[in-house]
This record gives sequence, C-alpha cells and structure tokens, in this order.
Amino acid sequence: MSKEIVLTGITTTGTPHLGNYVGAIRPAIEASRNQDVQSFYFLADYHSLIKCHDPERVNHSSMEVAAAWLALGLDADNAIFYRQSDIPEILELTWILTCMTAKGLMNRAHAYKAAVADNETAGSRDPDQGISMGLFSYPILMAADILMFKARKVPVGRDQVQHIEMARDIALRFNHHFGDLLVPPEAVVDENTAVLTGLDGRKMSKSYNNTIPLFLPEKNLRKLIMKIKTDTSPPEAPKDPESSSLFSLYQAFAGAQAVADMRRRYAQGISWGEMKQILFETINAVLSEPRKRYQELTADPAYIESVLRQGARRAREYSLPFLASIRHATGIRPIGG
Amino acid sequence: MSKEIVLTGITTTGTPHLGNYVGAIRPAIEASRNQDVQSFYFLADYHSLIKCHDPERVNHSSMEVAAAWLALGLDADNAIFYRQSDIPEILELTWILTCMTAKGLMNRAHAYKAAVADNETAGSRDPDQGISMGLFSYPILMAADILMFKARKVPVGRDQVQHIEMARDIALRFNHHFGDLLVPPEAVVDENTAVLTGLDGRKMSKSYNNTIPLFLPEKNLRKLIMKIKTDTSPPEAPKDPESSSLFSLYQAFAGAQAVADMRRRYAQGISWGEMKQILFETINAVLSEPRKRYQELTADPAYIESVLRQGARRAREYSLPFLASIRHATGIRPIGG
Repeated sequence: MSKEIVLTGITTTGTPHLGNYVGAIRPAIEASRNQDVQSFYFLADYHSLIKCHDPERVNHSSMEVAAAWLALGLDADNAIFYRQSDIPEILELTWILTCMTAKGLMNRAHAYKAAVADNETAGSRDPDQGISMGLFSYPILMAADILMFKARKVPVGRDQVQHIEMARDIALRFNHHFGDLLVPPEAVVDENTAVLTGLDGRKMSKSYNNTIPLFLPEKNLRKLIMKIKTDTSPPEAPKDPESSSLFSLYQAFAGAQAVADMRRRYAQGISWGEMKQILFETINAVLSEPRKRYQELTADPAYIESVLRQGARRAREYSLPFLASIRHATGIRPIGG
Repeated sequence: MSKEIVLTGITTTGTPHLGNYVGAIRPAIEASRNQDVQSFYFLADYHSLIKCHDPERVNHSSMEVAAAWLALGLDADNAIFYRQSDIPEILELTWILTCMTAKGLMNRAHAYKAAVADNETAGSRDPDQGISMGLFSYPILMAADILMFKARKVPVGRDQVQHIEMARDIALRFNHHFGDLLVPPEAVVDENTAVLTGLDGRKMSKSYNNTIPLFLPEKNLRKLIMKIKTDTSPPEAPKDPESSSLFSLYQAFAGAQAVADMRRRYAQGISWGEMKQILFETINAVLSEPRKRYQELTADPAYIESVLRQGARRAREYSLPFLASIRHATGIRPIGG
C-alpha cells in the first residue's frame, strides 16, 4: 500500500517574506507532517536560471530558502526535501518529454503569451524579442519535476493550473506511445489561500516592493510594521477590521480567540499605534524561535547542504529506477537488451 | 599540450548503406586513426526520439550502427566512441543552454522553417501542426553535444552548418554572462564528400528507397548490384564513364589504377553484365572481411555494449568535471560554496 504523493516546488529567487510564509510555507510545512502522505519538496534552482543570471544570487537564495523552510519546522525526515539540480534524472526526463510535447502546447502557455503581448504593446518588430527558450519551454521542465515522482496531487495557485494541465497532456501523450508509465497529475487549488497585504495596502509581493522579510532582526521587523499605511481616523473612533491591513496581518498570526477579541476592540476604537505594537508582538512571538534557528542554520551552511544531500539520496531512490523504466520504454536500452 | 578535438555525431535511425559508408563512415574512420587528434564519435540516440517512437527500432538501430562502425575499423582505443544517452551531463547542459538561447534563434532553424512551410503548403490552419518541441529545440541538444567536449572542429554536411553556427551563438551568450568557459565551435565542410548514386540513378538515400545496405549477405549484394539501372547500349559500344552509375560506384571502391583501367575499358566497350560482375567483386572484396566481423559483432551484443560503456567512461572523464565548472559558473553550487 503506497502513500499518496504530493509534490511542491519552491522558487529560489529572492528572500522569503511574510506573504510567502502565510500563503505557501506554513500550509506546506503543516502538510509535511502528515504521515499518510509522501511529500516531495524541492528547491527549483534550475528554474531560477531562466531569469536570474547572477550566480551569487542563485546560490545565496537557495540557502535562504532552504534555511527558512527548515527553521520554520519542515519535517525533512518525513517529507523528502531536495534540490532539483541534485537529481540529474529530471533533466534527462525533460528531454524525453520534449520529444513528446507539441510545440503548439507551449505556444499557448500564459507566461509566454504575456511576454509576447508585452512586446506587441511595446511596438517591437519581433514578438519573441528578449524571450529565451527557457521561458518558452519551462512547462516541460515542470512536467518532468512532477512526473518523475508520480505526484497525483500538486497544490498550486490559480496561475499554475495551466502548467499542471500541460503536464497531464504530455504524460498522456507519452503513455499513448509507450504504455501507461507516467501518472497524469491533478492541480489542487486551495481557494482559501491566505493573501497578505503588504506595507502599502496592496497584496504583499516582491514585485510591488512592499514585503516584510521573514527573518528580519526584531528591531527592523518592528520598524517595518510601524510603517504600514493606515488612515487618519483618531484613536477613539470605531474601526472597520475588514478594510484594515493591520487586522488582516493580525488574523494571519493570532489565534481565533485573539482575533475575535481584536474585532471587538476595533468596534470600540483602538489607536493605530497600539494596534501596530500588538501586531508586532504577535508576529514576533511566532517568528522569534524560527529566527533563532534560521540564524543558526545560515551560520552552518554545511549542515543545510547535508540535509539537501540526504533528501537527494532519498529522491533518487525513486528517480533512478523510474528513469530506467522510462528509458527502456522509449528504446534507450543496452545493446541487445 | 592538449590535442585538437573533433566531434562527430552518428544518427541511429535506419540500417547503414553504401552511401553512408563512402560519404561519412569511411572518412570518419580514417580520421579516428589520427593520433594528433582526439576524436569523439557518438551514437545520437536521444536525437532519434524526436522522430522515432518505435522503441525496438531505436534500440536495434543503435546496435546496427555501432556494429557497422566497429566492423569497418573504427579505432575505439584512440577515438572515444560512446552513446549520447550514457552521458547524463549532456542533458543537464542542454537545460542550462536552453536558458541562454533566444527563442528567435530557434524560430530561424532550417528544419523547423521547412516543417512550417510544409504546413502552409498543405493549407493547415496551425503553422505548428504536428511539430514537436523536440524538432523545435534539437539545435540546443546538438549544441550541448558539441560544447560538452570543447570540440573546436565539427565536420558536417552543408545542411548542418547552421546548427554549428547556433552552437557558437549559444556558447558566446553563455560566456558573456558567465565567463569564457565554452569553446565556440567551427563547422568544417568537406566540399569533396563523395555522393553515391543509388539503384535508380539518383543520390543513394534512405528517403528514395534506393539504397544498397552495407552488410547484405554476398548473394543479396550481387542481386542488388545486378538490378542497377543501365541504358540499352549494346556490349561493344563505347560508354561514357561520367554518366554511368556503375562507374561512379566502382570509383568509390576501386584503387586509382583500377579506375584508370576501367575508364579505358569503357572507351573500348564493355558489357553492362560484365561491369556489374566486376563491380560486385570489387565491392565485395572491400566488404567481405568487415561483413564477417559485423556478423560476429551482432551475434555478441554484450561485447558492443561493453565497448560503448568503456567509451562512456572515457567521455565522462571530460563531461563530469566540465559540467561541474559550468554549474558552478551559473550559481548551481553547494550551499555556502
């Protein structure tokens, strides 16, 4: 009786922030503790080469992301936590799948179409101006990431659903030619994914430059929270929790009882200054232990490396024999075998 | 002082025929004996997946091709003779290069443009109808084949020159971002490549179905040669060697003196029947020893396999450390390294 397999890729560009934590890291880490599921979590470093040609940043970001997940309690004994680039079988499968992918399928990928639309808006003579083959064909790499580990369920945001459907298409076409080896995956979209607001009241996102990094020193965390935009209503005025960024952040970090209490305090009137202090204390209480662990971990890169290598060994117990069957199915076999 | 590196890929679809032998195999095997050059010869089996989805054929064809090259005297101790699919580093480099390749470059590839033109001629609504990502992006795999072994010179036919230029482009773009690691290759086009005529007087080619397979049993070889088209001129009539398929085949297999003698006999008049018999004997004399070796080799697939594995071990002495430096240059490194 084999466990259900769930797979999650983690991008390795940029420094993890509170929005990543609430929307992706926290639920994934909770799932990593589920003993009924075999979770695969991987640092998608070969994806990062598509856009990032700064080697120091690629390398440093892998460390930050791995350290953050471990510091926040990823169960790397239960879940398999590895780095994509440690599994060469994925790149080999990528080429095999490339041969089974219709070019038309890639023409329809959202990210590619958006890049072409940008070129057209900019009046470029070449619609493919500045577009790399990495951007064009990364859904195939993503399909290989998923299909290699026979993940039936892939938790994704709405914008990633198309990629999972492409992986399905590619798997079915492979199976049609070579037999039912690949498991067509399904996207699992969590409609309740928490979206945090950032410093300026918009969605917290690296691209808006409005994030609060996860592991700021306590003092800097407090400073940033004090900077969050509020309206000019006086302390004693009753306030609407639903339109308050501070309240939405509070909700993401406080328990249900505390949130209900805070809702009453909003109705009675609470000063923004006091609310910010409470918010800081609440977030800091959640993060202070992980922050300490994060600092210890980043001071010991060899340890992080050893965890990832251990994960790669476990992942390759799957990928090596499975790639061998896939190769065999396509005719890539020993002579006479 | 390192030797000059020359690299040749061998397609593994179909059974080798006399045209392959004269145009490609024989000159390459001669070159493999040159001690001043480090030659790399590889079976391009991952390329064959682009068009061939018949696993038995992919596998069998690798054996036929490897056995033919060995039977004809490839010096597998001097040259490095390996199978592409035994070098996983090539597929990993393919992805790295994919990230450095402009999509526009692939849009301009001859093979892709020809496929689009065919669709347009056929009135297809989708110009990419039936075109796979394998066909679209194989110049990147080919670039990885070449760049992995730092081949400065790549002997190719005229139709392959564009691919070498693409490999150059990709290498230069990589070097621009990550430092001068890759060696931009140059195409070496042999203008004197012998082109054999086939059974019907056109160029001998699998696609014309007019080939004479290399290792037919003696009886079948004779039968096929007897079938070569000739005109109806009587035995005693003087004949023009330049317009005679039989003479052109003879020229490819006989020594200079024998060819000069035959030219005189053409002028004096020779019956087509006698000429065919002489041609058969001449070709058979060249092929009878290799044919025996070929039969021995194909009866012992494990031996062929061991030769290819030995070649792969030697090739990986280059590819493993070189991929490690390429990865390092792009930021794919151990944590903290």
